[in-house]
Order: sequence, then structure tokens, then C-alpha cells
Amino acid sequence: MKDENKSFFANSSDIDMEKYCVFKYYFETPFNVEETAAHLCREQSTALWKRVNYDEDFRPEHGAKVIDLKIIGTTKTPSLIALHAKGDVYNKAIVKIAHPTINFGTKLPNLMTAACGEGAFFTPGINSIKLLDIEFPKSYTNEFNGPRFGLGGIRKILNVYDRPLVCGVVKPNIGLKPKDFAELAYKAYLGGIDATKDDEMLSDVKYSPTKERVAAVINLMHKAEDKTGEKKIFIANITDEVDKILELHDMVVELGGNSVMLNAMTIGLSAARMLSKHSKVPIFSHFDFIAPYTRHPNFGLTTQVMTKLQRLSGFDGIIMPGLGDRMNTTTEEVKDNVNICLSKWGNIKSSLPVPGGSDWAGSLQNMYNTFNTKDFSMVPGRGVFGHPDGPESGARSIRQAWEAIEKNVGINEYAQSHKELANAIAAFGSK
Amino acid sequence: MKDENKSFFANSSDIDMEKYCVFKYYFETPFNVEETAAHLCREQSTALWKRVNYDEDFRPEHGAKVIDLKIIGTTKTPSLIALHAKGDVYNKAIVKIAHPTINFGTKLPNLMTAACGEGAFFTPGINSIKLLDIEFPKSYTNEFNGPRFGLGGIRKILNVYDRPLVCGVVKPNIGLKPKDFAELAYKAYLGGIDATKDDEMLSDVKYSPTKERVAAVINLMHKAEDKTGEKKIFIANITDEVDKILELHDMVVELGGNSVMLNAMTIGLSAARMLSKHSKVPIFSHFDFIAPYTRHPNFGLTTQVMTKLQRLSGFDGIIMPGLGDRMNTTTEEVKDNVNICLSKWGNIKSSLPVPGGSDWAGSLQNMYNTFNTKDFSMVPGRGVFGHPDGPESGARSIRQAWEAIEKNVGINEYAQSHKELANAIAAFGSK
Repeated sequence: MKDENKSFFANSSDIDMEKYCVFKYYFETPFNVEETAAHLCREQSTALWKRVNYDEDFRPEHGAKVIDLKIIGTTKTPSLIALHAKGDVYNKAIVKIAHPTINFGTKLPNLMTAACGEGAFFTPGINSIKLLDIEFPKSYTNEFNGPRFGLGGIRKILNVYDRPLVCGVVKPNIGLKPKDFAELAYKAYLGGIDATKDDEMLSDVKYSPTKERVAAVINLMHKAEDKTGEKKIFIANITDEVDKILELHDMVVELGGNSVMLNAMTIGLSAARMLSKHSKVPIFSHFDFIAPYTRHPNFGLTTQVMTKLQRLSGFDGIIMPGLGDRMNTTTEEVKDNVNICLSKWGNIKSSLPVPGGSDWAGSLQNMYNTFNTKDFSMVPGRGVFGHPDGPESGARSIRQAWEAIEKNVGINEYAQSHKELANAIAAFGSK
Repeated sequence: MKDENKSFFANSSDIDMEKYCVFKYYFETPFNVEETAAHLCREQSTALWKRVNYDEDFRPEHGAKVIDLKIIGTTKTPSLIALHAKGDVYNKAIVKIAHPTINFGTKLPNLMTAACGEGAFFTPGINSIKLLDIEFPKSYTNEFNGPRFGLGGIRKILNVYDRPLVCGVVKPNIGLKPKDFAELAYKAYLGGIDATKDDEMLSDVKYSPTKERVAAVINLMHKAEDKTGEKKIFIANITDEVDKILELHDMVVELGGNSVMLNAMTIGLSAARMLSKHSKVPIFSHFDFIAPYTRHPNFGLTTQVMTKLQRLSGFDGIIMPGLGDRMNTTTEEVKDNVNICLSKWGNIKSSLPVPGGSDWAGSLQNMYNTFNTKDFSMVPGRGVFGHPDGPESGARSIRQAWEAIEKNVGINEYAQSHKELANAIAAFGSK
């Protein structure tokens, strides 16, 4: 190895790991793996570590350092072509890099610049790279509040502790007048849904101003609470220009609203952190823009990284790509993301995991089996609001599906005595 | 075609195009191209266009509509594997979709949700998709201010109109104390650089608080202005949590700073729009997080889309992946991005294009020839601050390179009588 690259390697036992975040990457290179890993450290930290004609070295304090490196195979078919990294055979490697937190501080945009900015993605010699994970030292996460309400806070509002939650995206998602939107939500509440929400495409728009929509829903939500004896939530999508969201939040709360949502990836995680410092109600995220940088198996970021960052930034509920072919996300990846929401993490509260993707009553058993916990929420749209007998029956079909699970009865058998479930199976079961 | 899909097609002459943004995509599908394009429209707008048991149709007003569709080839090798879109042969198509602006309004996060959110990237039947372009109706862009200063405003500060600008990223980028950082910037100013800037990795950090760094640089910048008789700019990176950037901007301005920078992709374009409404000085963007979603040739977004959105959001200068193998960006793509900054666009001022990537004095001729305009800025780091004789010589070498171009003399010839250029060629020319 070139002498100048040796300073970019360290044993984790020789450095104070409280001063480092650990970035774990998969990468491919046609060149020497050790030299390339060193180059990756240089590019993301101190590519020039001294001034010309000065006797100094910024690497010990500011240099990123390889603390683990494994070659996991070779391939003749690169995942992506890079003009600066061509060869006959490409090495595949997993590297853990300890990056000094002093370089970027406890700020989400700056953390992302370090972990997945120009340094990581423009390192010469690397033809493909994927950020797999970020590990944080305790001193770092201590500077974050995390979710203000979290899973526990959401359960407390609903007073539901013993089953998965059911949240419905009101559909048609676009075009409904506030009054009509509220009517649909009302029916779903009557049928037993815990929460209804705006679609990620529905925000403070002229044909349905948030103010009117929230007012209309909250009015009927309270009526449904009285009728059912159950507490309910409405999640208002306040995604907007970032300087509007506190104002929209305040308006929602003033109208009696009890939850808000941000399209996390288009508005930025920093907006969530800002909002969560201020928020009086749980904040949900929607994953909208996540696929362009997470879909490729060997390039970009993992959804796991984004889930971790969303929890850290303060989202109380995290809507994520869920199970099923349509979402193009492996079962393992969805399970990981559910676990990242729920795992113990210092003082950072758990987030409610909300895996989404064309779910309906018939999806619940598989979700429950797969996640092996009741601590998640479904988020069907059509499965409630496209039910042939309307949203009240749609919501009821899902509660019935849970009853069947609790009683350890198959849904087809349970459907024989529950017509909403039977009609859901008839409508959605062939998928 | 299925009847229900016909409503997702229109002739652009039959609809009021002032009410639509046009999203242009490349996509691949193993299925029927027309049906798949219709599905793409449904998923990004009105997947359910009526309530159950109501006689209504939201498609005419709210549905996205295919206005142009071309099959451009087939392949047996899909760009990405999608579980819901497998086949033996994949059709490759280019589609233009007119999406009603009423669905999302003149808000950047919501626009992005519509153009590249769940709808576009989770449409069943599409195994790979890339957003190539967004076209805006005049009524839409009229709601945006765009850059407050723009190219013209930056030239006016510098009083330089007849050549490309030279901006240097102070290196070492990480680790310098404010006083030492300012000394390096000072030397570069003396050597003839127009602007110096913080690296994207350098923000308001403990070892170099923005307040101290800006104060130190501005002091010496004025001294250099006095000595050289030239006006200078310092671009302070104020990337931080989004609720801190206005405060940081105000602090920079109070200290006499005359430009700021945001890492556009990690902080979000909406932050730029907020800042530009407020800003007293030109705002530069850095592309840091752009690669993960633009690198793949057939998936994600193009950098061109992001350049257009950055100009719309109000960035006066746009630092973008530039020429050269290292940046993994084709020459055509860089040229496109330069043109997108400069092209006439209603009342939206031009942004200064700043293509970056390991440039030095020897890069200038090729940049000038390629872009065929003087309206750009270089942004070397090592090419100035890694010059063997120090940053003053590094800056001088670039001004000399421009003199050679103006005099129509090759740089090797010009270097015979200009030692800074000669030493730059010796240090960087072998690359």
C-alpha cells in the first residue's frame, strides 16, 4: 500500500469510537481493494490533509478511517459502468469506515453530505457503491430528540395496545371536495379504522384547502368516536414549501387535528427535525421519493439507512415500502425496516412502522406472521375505500381479518359468517 | 386498449396546456406499452377516479394524460429487475405525460412527489423508469421568483464581464483553523481568483465556526481587493438544519459576507426557495447527494431535471458535476446543464453554471470550447490550493491559462514565459 494511504486505516480499538459515525458500504472496483477503500476515505474527508509547504497532518483528527474491509467476491459484470473504473474483473467488497463526527456535527444534511455526498459517489476507481448502514455513537444520538410521541404516543391517543393499527388512505386520493372526503373518512371510522389519512399527492391544494378538509374530517371524526366509542386519528399531509409547514401544523392543531404527515424525501429530513421540535401531534413520513436512490441492489443507499435517519429526525410513524411484488422490496428489507423502527436505541423512542403497498384484509395475516409483532400499522387505500360495499365495509373487513387471526381461524372460514370480509376476498383476493 | 385507460390519453391541442406540467420519462416494460403508459398516469394521479357507487369521473380535471408515446426499441436485458414486471422481451419507450398542476400546486416538494414519487417509481409493469425532463407552463413558473441575483448579479459584484469566472474551493477542505483558511483564500485572491468558497464538507463546525471563518476571510478579502483592484467573493457554506439557515445567512451578511452556499440535495430545494426570498447575497448550490439518483442511465432522474429545479428554486449559481471521466457525466449532459442555467426562461434570471471536477489551468480551454460561452465558472480545488508554489501561484496559473486562450496561444507555449502555468502543467498535466 502507498504510504500516504496507511493513515486511512485504523483498528477500532485504537481510536475513540465515540468520536466517529460508522458508514458501511458495498463497493465494486477493478483495482486494488485496500487502495480503493483508502481513496474512499480520502474523498469523503481529507483528500488534501496538509497545506503546501507546511509540516502538518489533518488525518489523525479529521480523516475517515477503514476499520473493517472484506472482499466478498469478484464479477466480470460491473453493476454500473464508470469511466474512471474499468477493468476485466471487478472486486466486490464491504467496508466499514469510521468518519469523525467533528467534520459534520449533529446536523442531518451535513451528515448525509459526509455519508452519501460527492465523496462517496465520485471516488475515482469505484464503479458502484451503496451505503448500507450508518452506526452512531451514543454521544451523537444524544443530541437528537427523536420522535416526540413515537409508537407509544400513537397507541395512547387511540387507546389500542393489543393489535396492529389500521390506517386508511382516503381514495379517490385526488379530486374529492373536503366534504366528500370527510364523508368517506367518516364511513371508514364507523367501520373500525383507527386512522385515516391524506394521500401523499393530496396537500394544501386549491380544490381542497387543508383548512377546510381538516375541519370537515375532524367534525365527523368526533361524531364517529361518539358512535363507536373508539378514539380516532386523522393524518393531514402538510407537505409544502418548508417555510409553510409550521404554520400548517399550527392550523391543523387549532382545528382539532391530531396528526400530520410530511413527504419526507422531497421536503428533506431536516424539515422533520424542525417540525418535531415544534409539533403538538405525531408526525408521519411518506417515502415518496425513496425509490430512485434505493432500488438498485448495488448502488445508492438502502431503505434501512433512510428508516434509521427518519426515526432519528423525529418521525413518530414511518410509512415505508411494504410487502408484495409491487413494492419491489424484499421481505428481509421490509422486516429490517420494521425492526429499525422498533429496536431499542438509547433515549430515541420507537417509531410506528407502517409498511404500505396495496394491502387489504387478506394481507394482515402475512404481515403479522412476517413481522412477528403487533406493533405496526397497515395502510390500505383501495382495500378500504375501493371495497364494493364502500369504506365502512372495507374498514370492517380488516377488523374482521384481525378477529380471525386472534381466534386462529382462516379468513376464508371466518368470511362465511362475515359478509364484509367475504366481499373483500371476492373483490381483492384474486390478486 | 382497456376502456378505462382511454381517458389517460389526450392530444395536447385538445387540452389547455397552461394547466399542465409535462413530465417526460424513459421507461421499460415487458407488457403492452400503451396500457403501461396509462397505468403510469393512473398511479401518479387518479388511480381511483370515482367513489364506489357514485356516478362521477375525476379523470378529465385531475388525471395525468399521455400526450406523446414512442417505442424506441426492445431489449432482452432489463436495466433493473422488477418482481411485477418480468418477461422475455422488454419494450423501451419515451412518454410525455401532461400532469394537471391543480393536483400539486406551485410547491417544489409536491411537484417532485408528483413527478418522481411513489406514482412514477412503483407503477406495476414498469421495471425501470427515468424522469428525463419537466416542462412548465408560463402560469406555473410565474409563481416562482427564481434567482434573485443570477449570473448578471454575480458578474456585477465582481465587475467582470468578459471572461469565465474562477472560483476556488479552499483546500485542505477539512481541518483548517479559520485564520489559516483565510490566509489561503487571501493568497488565492492575490493570485487573481474571483471567488473562494467553503467545501461542501465544511459548514458551521466546532473547529471552524462559520462566524470566525467568515470574519477572517472577509477581512483579508478586502485587503486583497485593495491590493489587486479587483472585487472578490467569498461563498460561505451555510448548509445546516433547515431552521438555522436564515440565521446563518444573516450572520454572514452582517459580517460583510457576499455569498452563501447550500448543499442543495441534502437540505432540499424548498430550503433554497425559502432562502432566496430572504437573501441579500447570491446563493450557490452544491450537488452533493445528486449521484445516487441520477447516475444510472435508465433509472432515476436526469441531472438536467435537477438543474432546472435548482434554477427555479432560486439558486444564483449551480455547482454541478462537470467534465472529465471522474465525474461520470457525459459531455452532452454537462453541456445540457450549462445551457439549462443560461437559456431564456420567462422572467427567471439565468444562473451561473459552475461545472466542477478536478479542474486546473489546463482544463479551461476544453471547458470554453465545449460550452462555447464565457458564462460559466470553474471551481478548482487542488488545481489552485495544491499548486506546488501555493495558492497564489495556483490562481495565477488559471488567469494565465485564460490569457493564453484570449491570445490564441497554446498553454504549453504560453507556459514558457509564465512560470506559474509551467509549474501547474508539471504538477497536474500528466493526469
